[in-house]
Amino acid sequence: MRNIALLLSYLGTEYHGFQLQKTDRTIAGELNRALSRVFGHRASVVGCGRTDAGVHAEVYVANVKTESAIPADRLPYAVNACLPPDIAVFVAKEVDSSFHAVFSSVGKEYTYRISCGRVRSPFLADRVHFYPRALDVSAMREAASHLVGTHDFRAMRSVGSNVKTTIRTVEHCTVETRESLVAIRVKANGFLYNMARAIAGTLLYVSEGKIAPADIPGILQSGDRMRAGPTAPPQGLYMTGVWYPEDVLAFDAREGNGTHAFGGRRGNDE
Amino acid sequence: MRNIALLLSYLGTEYHGFQLQKTDRTIAGELNRALSRVFGHRASVVGCGRTDAGVHAEVYVANVKTESAIPADRLPYAVNACLPPDIAVFVAKEVDSSFHAVFSSVGKEYTYRISCGRVRSPFLADRVHFYPRALDVSAMREAASHLVGTHDFRAMRSVGSNVKTTIRTVEHCTVETRESLVAIRVKANGFLYNMARAIAGTLLYVSEGKIAPADIPGILQSGDRMRAGPTAPPQGLYMTGVWYPEDVLAFDAREGNGTHAFGGRRGNDE
Repeated sequence: MRNIALLLSYLGTEYHGFQLQKTDRTIAGELNRALSRVFGHRASVVGCGRTDAGVHAEVYVANVKTESAIPADRLPYAVNACLPPDIAVFVAKEVDSSFHAVFSSVGKEYTYRISCGRVRSPFLADRVHFYPRALDVSAMREAASHLVGTHDFRAMRSVGSNVKTTIRTVEHCTVETRESLVAIRVKANGFLYNMARAIAGTLLYVSEGKIAPADIPGILQSGDRMRAGPTAPPQGLYMTGVWYPEDVLAFDAREGNGTHAFGGRRGNDE
Repeated sequence: MRNIALLLSYLGTEYHGFQLQKTDRTIAGELNRALSRVFGHRASVVGCGRTDAGVHAEVYVANVKTESAIPADRLPYAVNACLPPDIAVFVAKEVDSSFHAVFSSVGKEYTYRISCGRVRSPFLADRVHFYPRALDVSAMREAASHLVGTHDFRAMRSVGSNVKTTIRTVEHCTVETRESLVAIRVKANGFLYNMARAIAGTLLYVSEGKIAPADIPGILQSGDRMRAGPTAPPQGLYMTGVWYPEDVLAFDAREGNGTHAFGGRRGNDE
């Protein structure tokens, strides 16, 4: 059995997340259908993480086993011809049989995008969180700096999945702005369920003055979900990076996808 | 009767163009419905131009007469609350009763966006023309330069609307690139039916070597539609500017809408 890693992007608006479900339309369901047609046998992808309904991915890695002899470099074209326009595979590479999109991953980045312009843009509907208020970016940045490092993130996640530990290491948490757009980028060795959206909601509470930046360490220590901000809505969230050890997956999981904090038209398709 | 000018944006994917139609969903139909609710009487907008099904507008101007006393600066918020997420009014201004969105206009700009990356991006579906080939941008620029000035554009339009003259003055026609995206911007004192898309299709034929840049003057002189390139598909086309004499409409029709050749997330909502 060959094992093939796929680098893909999707607009999550029309899907109930990545993970296969019995009745609802999901990214994994569409990928399995397209790959099965190309391979000529039933395909079953493993994704690098669950994403919720309405959440997007500029960068997403999955792997799939196949008996098919199709060259990996032809696979994106063949699969894309069978996929709907809101999902696309950019790169496919043959990997060791031990590669697993979740278990082999050593880091992920999510970017949460907010538009604080006074009027919602028709071009950003379902692609950002519209929040028509001035943001206190410097307070958000100060709060974000307290999230960097190894902490117990129980206070900033939703319950609902079994995990051995709620301790995660955040490598960076930045707040970037461009005109009326604000992007919160968080890279960590792993994310708890809804952790990225809980961080975004907490930073918005900081901007509103409901939480002081200096309160963040105490909130983390308390492990009390009620003390952090709410889970921000899904449409602002994008998976923007996935990392693997170099000897496990030779392609940079961001290759072929010149993402930047504001994503969109720049180079997603080059 | 007050006369109010509206600056708006829309994503045209779900609409059969701007112009009111009996059965199909149009931008004018949605605006009339929303404005009627806000005004408390039947409203009927006049748009600055017809756009075809699937064509977008980053900048569009309409005017509407009303008996309502609502302050113009409150109107965008009130109307947007009644509009679907793919249409938004950014600015409203009271204007002289003689102002007419079409007849008062002295210039318009359309931008045609092409993605020539090898893989279609999920984020650009229905928002660009996917054309996965290397473009000969310097040949396109040379051809574009021959379109600037006052010419008879009969060879680059579709028949179907009555016009007194097919002579138009093109102020600029540029070809800009950013990574795998190409934007053709055309500003003219007015556009014939499908003229912007025929220009885009002609420049793509130039890129493919089917038309030489030096052939453009002869094609214009011939007035022969068959000698120019085809009408490029609608999803790549955006109205990106409308101009009025300063004493007629005091707002710059691009104010509040920081458009640039590649549009999208940058400042559309500021």
